[in-house]
Amino acid sequence: MTKAGLTGLLVTHLPDVRYLAGFTGSSAALGVTRRRSRLFTDGRYRAQAAEEVQSAQVEIVSGAPAIAAVQWLAAQPGADFTGFDPTHTTVAELTHLRIELPSKLRRTFLAPLAASMVESLRLIKEAHELELISTAAQIGCDLFEHILTVIRPGVPEVEIAAELEYQARLRGAEGMSFETIVASGERSALPHGKATLAPLPRKGFVTLDFGIIREGYCSDMTRTVHLGTPRSEERKAYGAVLEAQESAVAAVSPGAGCGDVDEAARSVLRKAGMADAFSHSTGHGVGLEIHESPRVGAGQKTKLQPGMVVTIEPGVYWPGKFGVRIEDMVAVTQSGGQVLTPAPKALIEL
Amino acid sequence: MTKAGLTGLLVTHLPDVRYLAGFTGSSAALGVTRRRSRLFTDGRYRAQAAEEVQSAQVEIVSGAPAIAAVQWLAAQPGADFTGFDPTHTTVAELTHLRIELPSKLRRTFLAPLAASMVESLRLIKEAHELELISTAAQIGCDLFEHILTVIRPGVPEVEIAAELEYQARLRGAEGMSFETIVASGERSALPHGKATLAPLPRKGFVTLDFGIIREGYCSDMTRTVHLGTPRSEERKAYGAVLEAQESAVAAVSPGAGCGDVDEAARSVLRKAGMADAFSHSTGHGVGLEIHESPRVGAGQKTKLQPGMVVTIEPGVYWPGKFGVRIEDMVAVTQSGGQVLTPAPKALIEL
Repeated sequence: MTKAGLTGLLVTHLPDVRYLAGFTGSSAALGVTRRRSRLFTDGRYRAQAAEEVQSAQVEIVSGAPAIAAVQWLAAQPGADFTGFDPTHTTVAELTHLRIELPSKLRRTFLAPLAASMVESLRLIKEAHELELISTAAQIGCDLFEHILTVIRPGVPEVEIAAELEYQARLRGAEGMSFETIVASGERSALPHGKATLAPLPRKGFVTLDFGIIREGYCSDMTRTVHLGTPRSEERKAYGAVLEAQESAVAAVSPGAGCGDVDEAARSVLRKAGMADAFSHSTGHGVGLEIHESPRVGAGQKTKLQPGMVVTIEPGVYWPGKFGVRIEDMVAVTQSGGQVLTPAPKALIEL
Repeated sequence: MTKAGLTGLLVTHLPDVRYLAGFTGSSAALGVTRRRSRLFTDGRYRAQAAEEVQSAQVEIVSGAPAIAAVQWLAAQPGADFTGFDPTHTTVAELTHLRIELPSKLRRTFLAPLAASMVESLRLIKEAHELELISTAAQIGCDLFEHILTVIRPGVPEVEIAAELEYQARLRGAEGMSFETIVASGERSALPHGKATLAPLPRKGFVTLDFGIIREGYCSDMTRTVHLGTPRSEERKAYGAVLEAQESAVAAVSPGAGCGDVDEAARSVLRKAGMADAFSHSTGHGVGLEIHESPRVGAGQKTKLQPGMVVTIEPGVYWPGKFGVRIEDMVAVTQSGGQVLTPAPKALIEL
């Protein structure tokens, strides 16, 4: 804040509020000055805020928490400029916040931060966060092992998803980090094929892409298995994706550019003549949100640093035919990368 | 658009894109002129967009769909002003969109709409939408009936939530419309008490607040049941909430103000001496999103119209003791209100 010339910081993005103040409710804003911080929420969360928030004062308000936070920030001695997060503040919200300010502060008080200040803190995970992420990822691996016993021809995709989600709950998940993908047969060519009532085919790929949330932290993993014996083109595609994925995992190390990690996967698929079939980025950061910084995509300049956690998830898709994707979560260590999702990756035939 | 003096409309909020173009992918923007419309999405959704989108041309882009949409809108003959939705466009997104425009259009081309134009269309549900919402709500009722057979002392709250979610999938839900609330004993005093590993108590309330998504449309309902025989203060609280809820349901009719519906519930609880314990609004609209217009809260001037669907969900909460909430979805008809969640509301003792 001092470096950015700010006397205050308005934090409204809920994962940021959780990161800084520990509050998990669905309505809150945090005001931070150089000397103190105050969390604003509404009457529904009186008990919960008292229980969860240690590092900030708590104030229960009847109106919008963000407006109360801005008014509090504006009333602090020496208040001059308050940073807000332009990536999580809508144009309408900013208008409302400004209207509530004293007229002399209206135009200048709220200044957009160049990058989300809190997100850049969140980018590097602390030891206790890595532990939570690692536990969430391990639950994901356990779920994959379990679900292999359920996958067989004729079972509807949604039943696989339902069983995954049920077992996730029993293993301590608060919920899933995104809508579970179970895409079988031709549907495996849909990179985001949410589970449908379609029965699993007698022969063909089944792509499982799922994640859980535990103590706020997300996991994310993908495995593609095969029902019956794969045809040679299926085996070739799987082999190429696996090689691409392992090449990108091997490229994860402190100082490596995100674009270089992407290229490590992409170049393998290019050599295999499958460049066009790899229609998305290689990965993304994971933490309190399922998609956060950094982005692991072509041309991305961000350099990996110890404590970052990213997914590595190349895939190939041929509409009307089939698709394959393999995804791990990888933590950047002092010397390389540590795979947090050590479930088997050799092609499983069921 | 003609009334608002707009030559174009940029639609970026995904439920709005789905409403107008039928596309359900997670990355898209829609450009609309007075004569045509075009949907922009990325390579992951090539097959899905071709399958789902009839009313608009589809263009696959490698960059951000919203930027492609704005550039397309700016290149249309006679392009002058394009409306964007300030409630779903971040300050950062607007900056990025403007930078990509030709310099002579940069300052004036994108104009914030006074209210979300598409949301105001979505406010009044068409017959086929009411049917989908009604089906989703009925699945909710079936789930409630089923879950009564599972609720008993000692079962962890998360197991109740997991069973609800599993059964929801089997009954055709694509997912839940929000994180399932199972709040038992003292935790029933948390209006948003997500299911925990806490076992259900031998005696006390259990509040179940859950909703499903089916074909994109959300359901939402709450029932509070009691394990063992309620004490007289529990019975009194339940009776007051039930009376408040039924009074507000009865107040739903075309022309009624949302604030009046809220007051119908609030005045019952005020007379019962429980005004302070009712710490939230009476309800909200439901449709493609779990929370949409109108808001049913104190002082809200919006008049109900046939085709609107709202929740009616008063509750009372005493931290450290207990809480009660009862919620139905109600569709506004030509002559009154139709309850879409006809599950029993008399106090159930298990």
